[in-house]
Amino acid sequence: MKNKTPLAVIGTVAIDEVETPFGKRDRAFGGSASYFSYAASFFTPVSLVAVVGEDFPSEFLKILQEKPIDLSHLKRTSGKTFFWRGKYTYDLNTAETLETQLNVLTEFSPELRFESPPEFLFLANIDPSLQAEVLDQVGRPKARFVACDTMNFWIEKKRPELLKVLARVDGIVINENEARQLAGESNLIRAAQKIHRWGPAKVILKKGEHGVLVFDEGRFFALPGFPLESVFDPTGAGDSFAGALMGYLAKTGDTSFENLKQAVAYGSIVASFTVEDFSLDRLRRLDLKQIEERLGLFRKLSSF
Amino acid sequence: MKNKTPLAVIGTVAIDEVETPFGKRDRAFGGSASYFSYAASFFTPVSLVAVVGEDFPSEFLKILQEKPIDLSHLKRTSGKTFFWRGKYTYDLNTAETLETQLNVLTEFSPELRFESPPEFLFLANIDPSLQAEVLDQVGRPKARFVACDTMNFWIEKKRPELLKVLARVDGIVINENEARQLAGESNLIRAAQKIHRWGPAKVILKKGEHGVLVFDEGRFFALPGFPLESVFDPTGAGDSFAGALMGYLAKTGDTSFENLKQAVAYGSIVASFTVEDFSLDRLRRLDLKQIEERLGLFRKLSSF
Repeated sequence: MKNKTPLAVIGTVAIDEVETPFGKRDRAFGGSASYFSYAASFFTPVSLVAVVGEDFPSEFLKILQEKPIDLSHLKRTSGKTFFWRGKYTYDLNTAETLETQLNVLTEFSPELRFESPPEFLFLANIDPSLQAEVLDQVGRPKARFVACDTMNFWIEKKRPELLKVLARVDGIVINENEARQLAGESNLIRAAQKIHRWGPAKVILKKGEHGVLVFDEGRFFALPGFPLESVFDPTGAGDSFAGALMGYLAKTGDTSFENLKQAVAYGSIVASFTVEDFSLDRLRRLDLKQIEERLGLFRKLSSF
Repeated sequence: MKNKTPLAVIGTVAIDEVETPFGKRDRAFGGSASYFSYAASFFTPVSLVAVVGEDFPSEFLKILQEKPIDLSHLKRTSGKTFFWRGKYTYDLNTAETLETQLNVLTEFSPELRFESPPEFLFLANIDPSLQAEVLDQVGRPKARFVACDTMNFWIEKKRPELLKVLARVDGIVINENEARQLAGESNLIRAAQKIHRWGPAKVILKKGEHGVLVFDEGRFFALPGFPLESVFDPTGAGDSFAGALMGYLAKTGDTSFENLKQAVAYGSIVASFTVEDFSLDRLRRLDLKQIEERLGLFRKLSSF
């Protein structure tokens, strides 16, 4: 099957078991690529490259089908879907991973069949070897803007592979503590500069409730977190941040520093909705009008 | 002796022993009121209400005399000056207190002899009983704007006294984690709202490198931290933040929400200089032009 979308993402589509101080959900729809693509789809059509197992519920598929998300690269194979079980305690800032079952991810090898490669590509948090495979297939010079995410697990277990990916991307969207770990540097600005020297022109540091720090070849941009009275479930905040950010860049076709600021602001706002409910539930009740309204409020409460 | 200043602060004047990953200083000039008044003096004359012992070095006095800091309420008594010994490890975010000697503070009872009471008053981090004494003497209805700070030690040991002070102030400037502890609430917005209900109309939460969150009777203001490549010694950042903030409010005589935003931005910038060197060293090399320059940069890198 052939198709054309301005934006593609490779990452995980998962079944999560999540416990927060406010409740528990046994089989929640999760995964980096799920959150990413749903968030991106508010701005642009997006193609999701991922794998699920036989147990993947059809109602989860239907959720993705609500939006302009191209599922022709969502592979279904024998075996079980990637499973993550995690828990958030009182302060909601860090997830404690209780269990990870890679399942169908262990054998996954993406095969891209794009008519013309997506101009914007996001390598969500997944094995750097898979990220590299996708880069090989898309053909790095053909995609206009490629960004990636990663996590402590890959930083520890697959550092050489990860560094090779970094050398090939234009941007990285990463948690502040993972940036510190990756760079071996406690000061965030110096950590960002070090990561920048390894490849990505744009280094975007996610700080959870504390906002975002952006480095774009010597230029800075700092955004506070949107103040939220109730955070229900932080799962997927970072992935939907990246999704809205990349979706906005792909929609506008503009990767300038000034436009990246707007994209980061949209990312922050969409992520602020994500955490208000379990799974994709809040995003499913969201529309662009609500996003624009909260963005207006955000602009007001962060300008002086 | 009588005198008149627009702003007064009661707090500690201390001798610190500070160790950071970048060096150590055995007898550093410190204390909440020292940092506060030096930072405030960039904007307005300020009166320092505090006590020191016989061992207080004359060169530290000279540092305060460099600026429009009225020292007529700086009492010198027999005994030793308040001493704090602390250490910052790798991440520089939290000080580990290794030793505290209250010394002359144990017997301190401030006697205010202002011709007319200061319009602006800051009760820096000190025993809430002393904060209350000062409030009694200034006469709460006479001072136009009173704000306070506090710390975990008083939250734990003198909670009833602290709550009485809170009921009498217009503003509180407090670390985010101490706000959480004081309110018994992990969500910062809800913590701020709870503290607001106990008294202060303006609740200003200091988040260190992550910036500031301001609550002013239902209105929010969020500011990221100024991105700093090298943080040398975080001691005094919070006190100089409060000093510049109150100094700017006193200078402009305007406590509106809009002007508070400017004051908070000035506070953040002055604090960003404080941490670039030990003790008051960086502030001593600072002038209003440098403050304005960095503020301009800050405005640029945080607007979208």
